[in-house]
Amino acid sequence: MTTHPTGTAPGPEQQLREAELTDRVTASFDSCPDPRLRQLMSGLVRHLHAYVREVRLTEEEWNRAIDFLTRCGDITDDRRQEFILLSDVLGASMQTVTVNNEAHGDATEATVFGPFFVEDSPAVPLGGDISAGAPGEPCWVEGTVIDTAGTPLAGARIEVWEADETGHYDVQHDDHRTAARGHLVTDSQGRFRFWAVTPTPYPIPHDGPVGELLKSVGRSPMRASHLHFKVTHEDCRTLVTHIFVRGDELLDSDAVFGVRDSLVKDFEQQPAAPTPDGRIVQGPWTRARFDIVLAPAKA
Amino acid sequence: MTTHPTGTAPGPEQQLREAELTDRVTASFDSCPDPRLRQLMSGLVRHLHAYVREVRLTEEEWNRAIDFLTRCGDITDDRRQEFILLSDVLGASMQTVTVNNEAHGDATEATVFGPFFVEDSPAVPLGGDISAGAPGEPCWVEGTVIDTAGTPLAGARIEVWEADETGHYDVQHDDHRTAARGHLVTDSQGRFRFWAVTPTPYPIPHDGPVGELLKSVGRSPMRASHLHFKVTHEDCRTLVTHIFVRGDELLDSDAVFGVRDSLVKDFEQQPAAPTPDGRIVQGPWTRARFDIVLAPAKA
Repeated sequence: MTTHPTGTAPGPEQQLREAELTDRVTASFDSCPDPRLRQLMSGLVRHLHAYVREVRLTEEEWNRAIDFLTRCGDITDDRRQEFILLSDVLGASMQTVTVNNEAHGDATEATVFGPFFVEDSPAVPLGGDISAGAPGEPCWVEGTVIDTAGTPLAGARIEVWEADETGHYDVQHDDHRTAARGHLVTDSQGRFRFWAVTPTPYPIPHDGPVGELLKSVGRSPMRASHLHFKVTHEDCRTLVTHIFVRGDELLDSDAVFGVRDSLVKDFEQQPAAPTPDGRIVQGPWTRARFDIVLAPAKA
Repeated sequence: MTTHPTGTAPGPEQQLREAELTDRVTASFDSCPDPRLRQLMSGLVRHLHAYVREVRLTEEEWNRAIDFLTRCGDITDDRRQEFILLSDVLGASMQTVTVNNEAHGDATEATVFGPFFVEDSPAVPLGGDISAGAPGEPCWVEGTVIDTAGTPLAGARIEVWEADETGHYDVQHDDHRTAARGHLVTDSQGRFRFWAVTPTPYPIPHDGPVGELLKSVGRSPMRASHLHFKVTHEDCRTLVTHIFVRGDELLDSDAVFGVRDSLVKDFEQQPAAPTPDGRIVQGPWTRARFDIVLAPAKA
């Protein structure tokens, strides 16, 4: 539906001119030798033009959009990726994840990958501690990995990573530490268990144009508290997801729209002792359970 | 219409998840204090998500899109604007121009502004020569400026600018020259006339990611030959447009979709003499007529 800011719809001659232009641009991709690229480009043009026409984008607003993208480019470097942040806060990253991880029975839902995964994380034995000294409240996490037929998956590889209680991942500290990340392998019954730190909220980088945008529209840059998982097994679709903390007041306003109800878990507060593995813990700790169901590998 | 690359549409649970996500993201702008910004952002999200869903964008393709935007940022600086080029080759610049210059009676159609306009161009008397030594075939241009009621507009300011026959604007040469640009004022009967050079085709900058994109899709970076006009009069809507050269083989494949049929003019080849003002011209020259109709100023 085309609406006009002044309340009057464009006249028929005007609508014809606009539609004819869109057709001319989409037709310019007709001789593209790659059919998928042709589909991607002509679809992009159709939706982009529909947007410009629907909102009656002014030339001043177009200038501001160009300036915004230019400033995203200016702040982007090897350590900062403002275009990914932009995709994230528009929900485009999460929509891409959703499209590529179609609902399959009761398979665990996926969510955004984020920029803080690191290859070659430390191997951690079952029951070990991934925190490696990261500051935070101890948290015991346990669960199983099964397939959609209910069969436990032995030998599934589980990568976990998270921010510490200062709101930073290890790679955001300047001292080259490796902490609050690691990988484990499920046992013969598909079980896993490890110590970590209780997830705490943190903001996405918001000192750039994307942060300005969030401020202009009255949105928070905070992410809901979460613990990242990447679970791989040769027979199954790889799962990239988080678990979130039930009761976190940011669940409904996660800056990147990563929260799924099915991924919100109880992180139960525990007295100082006893712990599941007899470990001596100073002060309170939490425990959470995450039972994971992997979809079949794509055909 | 949602289509799926594998030929099967997403199931109902999947469609629900995707639609729910889009709703969640658009709702995140509900508390935006500026109603126009709220409209712009929620519309952007709706169209962006519709695109991702329709083409079933893969995560690999999303990565390539992020990389493309990053490279656009890398090449952009004070003299190069790859984001404007991107908007241009997607027809988004021309669609924005079209939306902001609605059809109004027989008012002359607008087209893209381009990056080569310069403020404070030289004043040129009626019948003078804007080329200022720019290489090219001489071209005599004349016409009138009237309003949509047919009244001649005295004192209308006409800015003209163009590339020389090497395919470059003055500002693209390294010697700080000012050439092939100027401004004139219509006489009491709304008439104007000047010498210029016959427009010749040239490519948009295509040594960056936008050029790579054009190559991938089998499109040319060439612009159809044209002469830029910006016409202002206090009672009227400012007109930014070009005239194009009838017979130019690039009219149907202009890289930025700037061509309108009504803007294609005869540039008639002339023998060396006589010229309209008795000027002595070496070799052939052309002459073109452009009668301009300005729409009323916006209310």
